[in-house]
Amino acid sequence: MSKIRLGMIGGGLSSFIGIVHRIAAYIGEEYTLVGGAFDTDYDNAIKFANKLELDPSRTYPDIDTFIEKESALPSDQRIEAVVVVTPNFLHYPMAKQLIQAGFHVICEKPVTNTAAEAIELEELVNKHKVVFALTHTYTGYPMVRQMKSMIAEGIIGDIQKVDAQYYQGWINPVIHDPEKRKSVWRLDPAKAGQSCCMGDIGVHAFNMIEYTTGLKTLKVLSDLNTLYADNPLDIDGTAMLRFEDEVRGIVRASQIATAEENSLRISVYGTKGALKWEQEDPNYLYHLEDGEPVKVLKPGHVYASEFAKQSTKMAPGHPEGIFDSMANLYIGAAKAIRGEEYIDGAFPTIRDGVRGMKFIEAVLESDKNGNTWAEIDD
Amino acid sequence: MSKIRLGMIGGGLSSFIGIVHRIAAYIGEEYTLVGGAFDTDYDNAIKFANKLELDPSRTYPDIDTFIEKESALPSDQRIEAVVVVTPNFLHYPMAKQLIQAGFHVICEKPVTNTAAEAIELEELVNKHKVVFALTHTYTGYPMVRQMKSMIAEGIIGDIQKVDAQYYQGWINPVIHDPEKRKSVWRLDPAKAGQSCCMGDIGVHAFNMIEYTTGLKTLKVLSDLNTLYADNPLDIDGTAMLRFEDEVRGIVRASQIATAEENSLRISVYGTKGALKWEQEDPNYLYHLEDGEPVKVLKPGHVYASEFAKQSTKMAPGHPEGIFDSMANLYIGAAKAIRGEEYIDGAFPTIRDGVRGMKFIEAVLESDKNGNTWAEIDD
Amino acid sequence: MSKIRLGMIGGGLSSFIGIVHRIAAYIGEEYTLVGGAFDTDYDNAIKFANKLELDPSRTYPDIDTFIEKESALPSDQRIEAVVVVTPNFLHYPMAKQLIQAGFHVICEKPVTNTAAEAIELEELVNKHKVVFALTHTYTGYPMVRQMKSMIAEGIIGDIQKVDAQYYQGWINPVIHDPEKRKSVWRLDPAKAGQSCCMGDIGVHAFNMIEYTTGLKTLKVLSDLNTLYADNPLDIDGTAMLRFEDEVRGIVRASQIATAEENSLRISVYGTKGALKWEQEDPNYLYHLEDGEPVKVLKPGHVYASEFAKQSTKMAPGHPEGIFDSMANLYIGAAKAIRGEEYIDGAFPTIRDGVRGMKFIEAVLESDKNGNTWAEIDD
Amino acid sequence: MSKIRLGMIGGGLSSFIGIVHRIAAYIGEEYTLVGGAFDTDYDNAIKFANKLELDPSRTYPDIDTFIEKESALPSDQRIEAVVVVTPNFLHYPMAKQLIQAGFHVICEKPVTNTAAEAIELEELVNKHKVVFALTHTYTGYPMVRQMKSMIAEGIIGDIQKVDAQYYQGWINPVIHDPEKRKSVWRLDPAKAGQSCCMGDIGVHAFNMIEYTTGLKTLKVLSDLNTLYADNPLDIDGTAMLRFEDEVRGIVRASQIATAEENSLRISVYGTKGALKWEQEDPNYLYHLEDGEPVKVLKPGHVYASEFAKQSTKMAPGHPEGIFDSMANLYIGAAKAIRGEEYIDGAFPTIRDGVRGMKFIEAVLESDKNGNTWAEIDD
Repeated sequence: MSKIRLGMIGGGLSSFIGIVHRIAAYIGEEYTLVGGAFDTDYDNAIKFANKLELDPSRTYPDIDTFIEKESALPSDQRIEAVVVVTPNFLHYPMAKQLIQAGFHVICEKPVTNTAAEAIELEELVNKHKVVFALTHTYTGYPMVRQMKSMIAEGIIGDIQKVDAQYYQGWINPVIHDPEKRKSVWRLDPAKAGQSCCMGDIGVHAFNMIEYTTGLKTLKVLSDLNTLYADNPLDIDGTAMLRFEDEVRGIVRASQIATAEENSLRISVYGTKGALKWEQEDPNYLYHLEDGEPVKVLKPGHVYASEFAKQSTKMAPGHPEGIFDSMANLYIGAAKAIRGEEYIDGAFPTIRDGVRGMKFIEAVLESDKNGNTWAEIDD
Repeated sequence: MSKIRLGMIGGGLSSFIGIVHRIAAYIGEEYTLVGGAFDTDYDNAIKFANKLELDPSRTYPDIDTFIEKESALPSDQRIEAVVVVTPNFLHYPMAKQLIQAGFHVICEKPVTNTAAEAIELEELVNKHKVVFALTHTYTGYPMVRQMKSMIAEGIIGDIQKVDAQYYQGWINPVIHDPEKRKSVWRLDPAKAGQSCCMGDIGVHAFNMIEYTTGLKTLKVLSDLNTLYADNPLDIDGTAMLRFEDEVRGIVRASQIATAEENSLRISVYGTKGALKWEQEDPNYLYHLEDGEPVKVLKPGHVYASEFAKQSTKMAPGHPEGIFDSMANLYIGAAKAIRGEEYIDGAFPTIRDGVRGMKFIEAVLESDKNGNTWAEIDD
Repeated sequence: MSKIRLGMIGGGLSSFIGIVHRIAAYIGEEYTLVGGAFDTDYDNAIKFANKLELDPSRTYPDIDTFIEKESALPSDQRIEAVVVVTPNFLHYPMAKQLIQAGFHVICEKPVTNTAAEAIELEELVNKHKVVFALTHTYTGYPMVRQMKSMIAEGIIGDIQKVDAQYYQGWINPVIHDPEKRKSVWRLDPAKAGQSCCMGDIGVHAFNMIEYTTGLKTLKVLSDLNTLYADNPLDIDGTAMLRFEDEVRGIVRASQIATAEENSLRISVYGTKGALKWEQEDPNYLYHLEDGEPVKVLKPGHVYASEFAKQSTKMAPGHPEGIFDSMANLYIGAAKAIRGEEYIDGAFPTIRDGVRGMKFIEAVLESDKNGNTWAEIDD
Repeated sequence: MSKIRLGMIGGGLSSFIGIVHRIAAYIGEEYTLVGGAFDTDYDNAIKFANKLELDPSRTYPDIDTFIEKESALPSDQRIEAVVVVTPNFLHYPMAKQLIQAGFHVICEKPVTNTAAEAIELEELVNKHKVVFALTHTYTGYPMVRQMKSMIAEGIIGDIQKVDAQYYQGWINPVIHDPEKRKSVWRLDPAKAGQSCCMGDIGVHAFNMIEYTTGLKTLKVLSDLNTLYADNPLDIDGTAMLRFEDEVRGIVRASQIATAEENSLRISVYGTKGALKWEQEDPNYLYHLEDGEPVKVLKPGHVYASEFAKQSTKMAPGHPEGIFDSMANLYIGAAKAIRGEEYIDGAFPTIRDGVRGMKFIEAVLESDKNGNTWAEIDD
């Protein structure tokens, strides 16, 4: 069984996120990076290819050439899967082209700019029967997967409350100065899309809820904050969620939670117990039950679920981190690409992308309509 | 300077809360328990007095007799301050009687059943010039007071976001069984008043916000949950808060956060930094600033504020707990009773009671009106 | 059943430790402070008595008068138990006098200056059949008692390793300056006795080991550090311990563990599991087992041992602290004084005092003899 | 600048440690795995090469062939650096051969079986001017490097006490059953060498001390435990350390610390402050100072030392783990191999290997000689 031939759009010398994806691809030893359109500056793209000792003939000036030339190669040489790590607004058109050309796609978040575009991609993915992996990175942590397994097995019973937080503080140092603000592309609707905070991080919290619990969000009521009238995008917000059976949830997100780093947390309370997890200490899962000591689960133990076991490489006490989490998504996608069996949730799909975009749009709608309930259809 | 002569209404043999207040009174060595109306069963009241070696002649069968007899004593013998630890619905009428009779009052929470009653008590307190201390116990912790001092000094700048949580799980084991539910007085509107979760614990989170930050809440939008249609009172709820200058806050409260113990937490984010505190680990205060290591403050150090210093009895590393926290309220009230100077916030007052009741009523109103904003006046 | 009439030697206006003991006595409502010899300055003693509203006729100028006058009172008026909170070197002679006069004694640590003196006290306690409680305060924490119960029940199997730490940093700011050093009585052998670090805190770690495990230490090998040649007393040291059956232990103690507060920790490893506890977070007990999630036990739960239950006053999630811990010793001693049944370990006794002094002397001997094994007899 | 051509001895299909090293090599994108002698079973070696899509012509049946064939290649094709991940007893002879043949070596721990062998390797490394990296993995964590930088800069002043712990529990489930014990190669002197606990993990704690502090250990006094007379190797032990200027240290190591995972911890106390770190939560460094709040440092911040910055790939709040730590050693070694400048400590060298072996032998000697001091020369 050979490695999967991987291409990359974007991710060249000046890219921060490209290396993250490459490391994730390396870790499982399932992929070989073969070529790509790494940079809009072709000279830089070639420099990058040389640095990585890639075949320069498979470094392309743009995605159109990439698709054209790769599609012309025999199927046992052609790139099979493509990582899209371009600026956000290009995710949708590029993913669309790639899907239509029959490539499997591993796409950075956000999947699209609108829910309609995400739905369109979903239809194309189904039509072209390609694998589409959306890198909601945090879903790859072993203890998140342990949580998903335990909830699915009914260990905490019926869920009665969910609370998810994603607090960062990085906008605080720039938001109070209109000049500094201009340097932040996430605050520019042309580059960042409809939302800053909810679109970038609130959606992670939302995804984490639906991913771990399997609950479907029916409607949201949100209160967003731009802090200054001349700042067009939300940088803080709270959303109340309503699931089936009147189950309640909360998504709290902020980029002005001063000096918070990357505090994604989720607590799920059920009739038989609760599970709590925090991204900054990802190797700890807290299991609470009435009248019992709190149980602290860690990766690599005999008590791990099959899904968590498959997502852990080392013996207990050897902390794995964010790269390992993303690597688990790549490993999951590799199984799908190869047509092997894999555990549901092994990687987020275009379905997660559709749900996320619908959440973002509903949250914006609720806030615009005076903090009233906005529905999210399937 | 002699000790303050203290009376107690309720708090006898079968009372859980009575001993908490007595310990709080003992710790500062500022009060002597002299007498009271400890029990509706007079025999038990006398047994209790004997157990504590109190003068039985000052153990009264009821509050009316208490007031009548004590008022008849010379001023240097008369009980000066009275602790009200009766069932909730009696707080208001008894506090009212005592204030009108010129006694200082130390009253358990909730202060009244309605905001209107609290406002009435406030007018009486002002008219009769008595001290009224409301035992929002958690405000007595040294690190809460450190937080209040630091915010007042501007150390975290202007506040831009506040998030307070009060999660408990104790109702989970009873709520799913209609029979078990009946045994819980907090679920009975006749005994518990208008609200269970928000009235009992949400209000603590609200008070903690206004206490530490000095912010005034202008309006709330809430979503409450009774979980079952035949359960009349909220056992879970979220409220979005709006303060002056568009500052946003959240109060999250639950009694079905399965297996949570008493998880009161507050995070306050300002333009220059943030402060975070948790009741279950009360001797730690986290101070975050952009680009700085997180600072962990603990009691008893040279860096403590004057207010925190006055609220700490031991050297660093000797954990104080909930009794010590409540003792700090008693010590603060003693200063007020004696007419000595004291730091603002040394004990919660009837003002806190009024604010709390207004919060509860606004939260109920918002929820009833389809999760719309409800205003809170001064 | 009336309260126990309590006296106090030392503990007056200028005393730090006196209030700690009084609070501990108040909390359980088992004692009434009746009189004492509170201060070597009689005027101050009277001032103190007045402040506490004690009968001045039972405030005595010295311990001899105390014993004489109290002994002359009828038995139903006479002080029954006496707290000794004088400077360290006076503990032994005063405890001795009190025991010989038939008083129960609650004595601060260290019990004596030498092991021989402690043995003498033990003989007197047995002869005069009085209760002698030694305030090894940390043994009163509910989770320490839970640990003791669980080990006694065999829950962690046979013990194979014990590691106890007591790290403080308070001597760091003075030790490097010979002038500052002079101001510290603990560094003066005339006042502090044979040892500073091991005598003051190492002995707590040792006691915690023998208290929780029931193991008996047979010999020690120690390495002590004075840091400077002109500093006569140890301020840091490590001791290897050998128990029965070749079980090994470690006591690590330091007063130059810079900026540590009061970090007493113990870890006990057995064939079936382990238990870990830390004094600065006293309400958490960690139970480890092969292949199981770590269990975190907290006070007040249904799973608590009877002993832990008796040592907890509040519902889960309401942190109790150091005063509550010491109060538990007073409550235990009250049972003994009244001749009621009590759980073994309810308060440390003169036996703990003897063991502790033997440990200190063995540690000093080992270090003096070039870090060789020194035996500890029974 | 091309990638470094990497070879590997051992590490094939059945190897656990091979993948760890490959991931570490991949992460920095500095190495290309070209060939090796992956397995003593040549068929398996070829299968492995095929799985990784390596050139089968550079998969060799044994190290001799590897050296012979690779040495015959032109210098711009020849493998430059070789990873040794064979069973422990082969590290020394294979490393020796490779050094003598002019290859750079990246060697798993333990470097050799004896100190004499390590000294011999050191002489060869110096003579042949090759790079020798010893994978003391934990030295690659950003916060360990931050600690090293801060101590070197004098931020905690002169060191006065060091305490390092390495506790695991994995031997507990096998040690009590002589049959199970036989299945554990680490308990077999023929395979594990002179020591089990001290040789495998105690030496990590020792290395962490010398690595972070720069202190040189002059002598040790140890107490080792085999638990059963018929178990030939230590599985638990404590060593007292003496550095220059009478500075004291402790190394505590155990493999029968029941249910501990991989608890490597170090605390360094100096005249101006202290630093504490734990391997299981590697992204937190605690900085203590007299009279100051505890400062918690994390990776990726502006306050990081240059060395820590170079060892961090992500923004704050994105936890890196053990693979990233080892990758940092590979990145450091790459700089040395290329002749680029690098920060001292960028990777552990043969010097660390020599010191570690001397420590192990001194610890064994001390224990054998009745727990007496054993010296460690340079």
